[in-house]
Amino acid sequence: MNNTLDQCCVDTLRFLAVDMVQKANSGHPGMPLGAAPMAYVLWTRWLKHNPRNPTWFDRDRFVLSAGHGSALLYGLLHLSGYDLDLDDIKQFRQWGSKTPGHPERGITPGVETTTGPLGQGMANAVGMAIAEANLAARYNQPGHTVVDHRTYALVSDGDLMEGVASEAASLAGHLQLGKLTCLYDDNGITLSGGTNISFTEDRAQRFAAYGWHTIVIGDGNDLEAIEQALSAARDESDRPSLILVCTHIGYGSPEQDTFKAHGSPLGAANVLKTKRALDWPTEPDFLVPEQALVHWRSAVARGAEYESDWNTRKEIHSRSFPRLAAELETRMFALLPSGWDVAIPTFPTDSKGLATRDASGKVMNAVAPLLPALFGGSADLDPSTKTALAGLGDFNPAQTPTAEDHQGSAGGGWNHRGRNLHFGVREHAMGAIVNGLAAHGGFIPFGSTFLIFSDYMRPPIRLAALMRLHVVYVFTHDSVALGEDGPTHQPIEQLATLRAIPDLVVIRPADANETVAAWRVALESRDHPIALILSRQELPTLDRSLYAAADGLRRGAYVLYDSPGEMPALILIASGSEVALVLAAALRLQAEGIATRVVSMPSWELFERLSPAERDAVLPPEVKARLAVELGIAQGWQRYLGCDGDMLGIEHFGASAPAEELLKQFGFTVENVCQRARALLARRKPQA
Amino acid sequence: MNNTLDQCCVDTLRFLAVDMVQKANSGHPGMPLGAAPMAYVLWTRWLKHNPRNPTWFDRDRFVLSAGHGSALLYGLLHLSGYDLDLDDIKQFRQWGSKTPGHPERGITPGVETTTGPLGQGMANAVGMAIAEANLAARYNQPGHTVVDHRTYALVSDGDLMEGVASEAASLAGHLQLGKLTCLYDDNGITLSGGTNISFTEDRAQRFAAYGWHTIVIGDGNDLEAIEQALSAARDESDRPSLILVCTHIGYGSPEQDTFKAHGSPLGAANVLKTKRALDWPTEPDFLVPEQALVHWRSAVARGAEYESDWNTRKEIHSRSFPRLAAELETRMFALLPSGWDVAIPTFPTDSKGLATRDASGKVMNAVAPLLPALFGGSADLDPSTKTALAGLGDFNPAQTPTAEDHQGSAGGGWNHRGRNLHFGVREHAMGAIVNGLAAHGGFIPFGSTFLIFSDYMRPPIRLAALMRLHVVYVFTHDSVALGEDGPTHQPIEQLATLRAIPDLVVIRPADANETVAAWRVALESRDHPIALILSRQELPTLDRSLYAAADGLRRGAYVLYDSPGEMPALILIASGSEVALVLAAALRLQAEGIATRVVSMPSWELFERLSPAERDAVLPPEVKARLAVELGIAQGWQRYLGCDGDMLGIEHFGASAPAEELLKQFGFTVENVCQRARALLARRKPQA
Repeated sequence: MNNTLDQCCVDTLRFLAVDMVQKANSGHPGMPLGAAPMAYVLWTRWLKHNPRNPTWFDRDRFVLSAGHGSALLYGLLHLSGYDLDLDDIKQFRQWGSKTPGHPERGITPGVETTTGPLGQGMANAVGMAIAEANLAARYNQPGHTVVDHRTYALVSDGDLMEGVASEAASLAGHLQLGKLTCLYDDNGITLSGGTNISFTEDRAQRFAAYGWHTIVIGDGNDLEAIEQALSAARDESDRPSLILVCTHIGYGSPEQDTFKAHGSPLGAANVLKTKRALDWPTEPDFLVPEQALVHWRSAVARGAEYESDWNTRKEIHSRSFPRLAAELETRMFALLPSGWDVAIPTFPTDSKGLATRDASGKVMNAVAPLLPALFGGSADLDPSTKTALAGLGDFNPAQTPTAEDHQGSAGGGWNHRGRNLHFGVREHAMGAIVNGLAAHGGFIPFGSTFLIFSDYMRPPIRLAALMRLHVVYVFTHDSVALGEDGPTHQPIEQLATLRAIPDLVVIRPADANETVAAWRVALESRDHPIALILSRQELPTLDRSLYAAADGLRRGAYVLYDSPGEMPALILIASGSEVALVLAAALRLQAEGIATRVVSMPSWELFERLSPAERDAVLPPEVKARLAVELGIAQGWQRYLGCDGDMLGIEHFGASAPAEELLKQFGFTVENVCQRARALLARRKPQA
Repeated sequence: MNNTLDQCCVDTLRFLAVDMVQKANSGHPGMPLGAAPMAYVLWTRWLKHNPRNPTWFDRDRFVLSAGHGSALLYGLLHLSGYDLDLDDIKQFRQWGSKTPGHPERGITPGVETTTGPLGQGMANAVGMAIAEANLAARYNQPGHTVVDHRTYALVSDGDLMEGVASEAASLAGHLQLGKLTCLYDDNGITLSGGTNISFTEDRAQRFAAYGWHTIVIGDGNDLEAIEQALSAARDESDRPSLILVCTHIGYGSPEQDTFKAHGSPLGAANVLKTKRALDWPTEPDFLVPEQALVHWRSAVARGAEYESDWNTRKEIHSRSFPRLAAELETRMFALLPSGWDVAIPTFPTDSKGLATRDASGKVMNAVAPLLPALFGGSADLDPSTKTALAGLGDFNPAQTPTAEDHQGSAGGGWNHRGRNLHFGVREHAMGAIVNGLAAHGGFIPFGSTFLIFSDYMRPPIRLAALMRLHVVYVFTHDSVALGEDGPTHQPIEQLATLRAIPDLVVIRPADANETVAAWRVALESRDHPIALILSRQELPTLDRSLYAAADGLRRGAYVLYDSPGEMPALILIASGSEVALVLAAALRLQAEGIATRVVSMPSWELFERLSPAERDAVLPPEVKARLAVELGIAQGWQRYLGCDGDMLGIEHFGASAPAEELLKQFGFTVENVCQRARALLARRKPQA
């Protein structure tokens, strides 16, 4: 009977997915048919969650990395009692529905992270497991456990082929994330054919090499085998688990075990054949037998119990450790602790100045001790990106040697309490892992590398923007001024291509004090990612008694300086390291009698938030002589230049030479800026 | 004595690198000090090359994937007798020198591929090994071997951590590339610290899981052990080899075995200490002892012999197989065979039309049989991207099952002669592998995926542009019109961000016949990569008797239609799937008495090659009412709109719904285009 009930529950899930895809006439039926049994066992016997409160903090996290199997996830959520009714299910892949083509965080209750681009979800799960381990290490106390949940991911062949997942898996093994379990839907089929055409490696051996615990299940329909594997995974303390479950894509359908079952609806005829093959009533569609529903919905009562039990433990914990508990609360609600910014420095005027990467490092280290949510690291570049949080320890297994032999955070020890995460040379995984940290909650994660290598992590940056996650990227070495390393390392188009991503805020501060303002914006933001673009080279710290205050940065662009008197004849616009350059040029032009305005424009996105009137106050429409200066391509600048403006940029790749030489060769000198400005004014004369 | 000579040769290489870095006061001395012995053994005892003819076709390929060790490579090239003299060596990292910060193909004779961004070189090497295997399978005949060379790569910890290298290694094992050998400089140190902080996986076991042959060498200074390992690798027929060589970064220097030796000059004092520690004369700098030079330079005589021997074999081969030999010649010189395009179809007018991805597939299949250099595939998407070359076989190990069980090329069998390469779900490796194929020579490689996933492969796309390699990308599903898969799969900013890459030509054809013209441009180009941007949905095949000919595409933008009579009052500009839309709008506006011009603009880059006069003929400066329509962000379009123009684009992420619904919701309808155009004209009235 129980067996029959199990079977009925599994098939209910299978055919909800099949009917969803068929009704939408779009989607992926094959994976749900094969993976339903493992999903059923996990969700009804192991997953600790509360369908009535999808945001309960201590829930287990479940990630459907194989996002194309969204119909399976929607079925799980509906059957388990989440706020997703049958009408939502029937609106699968339709405009405005709660059941989009791929799972989207924020649209469907119970969806932890947006998946679909392969490899991302699995790496997000690694980030979530890191989040749990770090919170548990900080907030649990002997006899008091307030953070204790696991992270599960359902992954596909495609996930395991993607480099981002390989990077994340290697790091997860190194970090000994024992509470991470990946169920691998090993069906031997991908979109274009069998894995035999491109993917014949020994997956279990590879993951064993990463330091994972692996279990192979020969029959994906064997519920007890799945049960035992999940139990074995639960018993692991130091190794993440990969459970390789051999399944049949499109199980029961005429196209079982072929790529044809992967990404297209079965078709009405084959839907009937599949239902008959599995002894399922051919109608009605979207059939949910009462007994199955009752069994699935027992998750609601269990969930309420889980949460109330946790509330009790939390209650006691907060009485015993009020300060810790209050801190945890602040993080759960994503609030900035009062006084978080008291130690932020103001940098004195200094013509030599310092690199904005150095200013950034000082700000981070001033804030970090007061902002425990700030957690992250670099892709093996913290000595260069200045992102190490001194004295706050390294997130690493306890037995790792002391920090003395590397240039991370000095001291603080090594364990899961540490707040410096060494990603290794794994930019792509870094991007996906910080997404997982942010999606988990309780963190303001940061990831850092050279600006050029942001190209390695564009997919997760885009997903952070799509999910509107609060993630901070620290991208340094932001122009050809990095010098000798040459064109492979010199960003040219990266500023433009980051600005191109919707809902990502890009900020390129001009000096140390703008860097302070940029970090304030980055930390106070809550609903979108921020990319800080910082210089390798020293930049003068501007005299703010002569020029406008640095917190003008909050407006995206501000008038840094105006020649005395009337409306300017010319506006020089720049960001980052070029602001001091145009300022010097402005003073020279002014001496020649050209009334010049200097606009520091660190962020297009912040500027676009202003009202038209506010923008016109910075860039008056009547002033048509505008010269923008930036060490990158002009693409996109035209919108601020009007039809008569000009742009001094770089439209070609860089070169290997000392920075000063490159700036001279590429025309980024006071002389050339002045000359371009004069030419611009001369061109306009006739019209004047 | 021989031992002493070996040691002298090794240390000559070491200190050339140290002195280069010290004189430039910039660079990476640590790796050359540790890796010099393996480089010496490989280059003097195994590498088949001709220093006097770096482009000799049958040479072994050597890739320094750890590009930051460029000083080592320049030392090898100079000592071996390439056209790189001591003065060039002394100009390391200086403006205009032949010795840039990282190795750059095209700048330094003997540099096969541009490296530095980690993981890329190793994946390039996989592409080169694929190239050799495919050419050997096609052109060698029993008793006649004209293609027989090996590919060597020197890789670092960082390379092995990068996902792109993991993807490529998995594929290389699957493909049984026995003539690929990677020397792994296993020094346990990365930029920021010891590998113990982030990279503790079992590398040998991982590569064994991929199907590689692995050998561990405990002492990187043991020349005989290196010799034997290379010999064992040579004996492998079906497995690529990874030789893990334990070395000491910064060997001999006071900072040996620390990250400090990785990326900064040793400093004058430590240079002296290092030279003393290794019994090397402290002066002069750049010392090349006569005996060492003589021994290194023996490569010149050997190289001449290799090549003349090959010429003899090739001579005989061409007498026995004139047609094959002529074909190989054509490919070696990167020429298009005469008549390559005779089978290219012209598509008849068709209001229903076909998707440009389908038109592309037809063109590829019409050309492929006549153009053997055309080789490539997709990242597991060929059923969707239509890039399978029917009947031309799959590049795969012989024992792989017949092609019937997958949707690649029907028939043609399976072996290294096949021309369809199944990359698996590995976009990043695909990008780097096609670079390796192009850098090897003899191929016009193509790689294909959905446009959105071009984000996964931006680093190799950028390197293809930097190297000016002839690579063709086939990116389909090019807009929100892909429909239900939703925002994770819908490109919004990708067109703009590809256009942002210098020297990459992006082409988005409007119908089947523009797709033909686009493929002609793509195949006739020789010195830059091309990205073809194609639709998933059907597009009408325009009636070219009413509208301008499709080969106007060669000019990047052309007047597709003009209202009869005077100068137009309005210009509608579009690319790809939006061209038919604006054409319909133009006819309606014309009926309202608005003289309208329709400009099809498939490629900004091709348009920018025109003279200003030619561009003005398409977009007359006096016509200021311009409306651009494209299913993507406006960034960059402003330059073609002038100050009074308008853009109908999408500045936010997409959504999951049927395509028609999305186009309506986002305003891509004839009604809305007309309304925006009227509004544009109305706004201009007062000024008129």
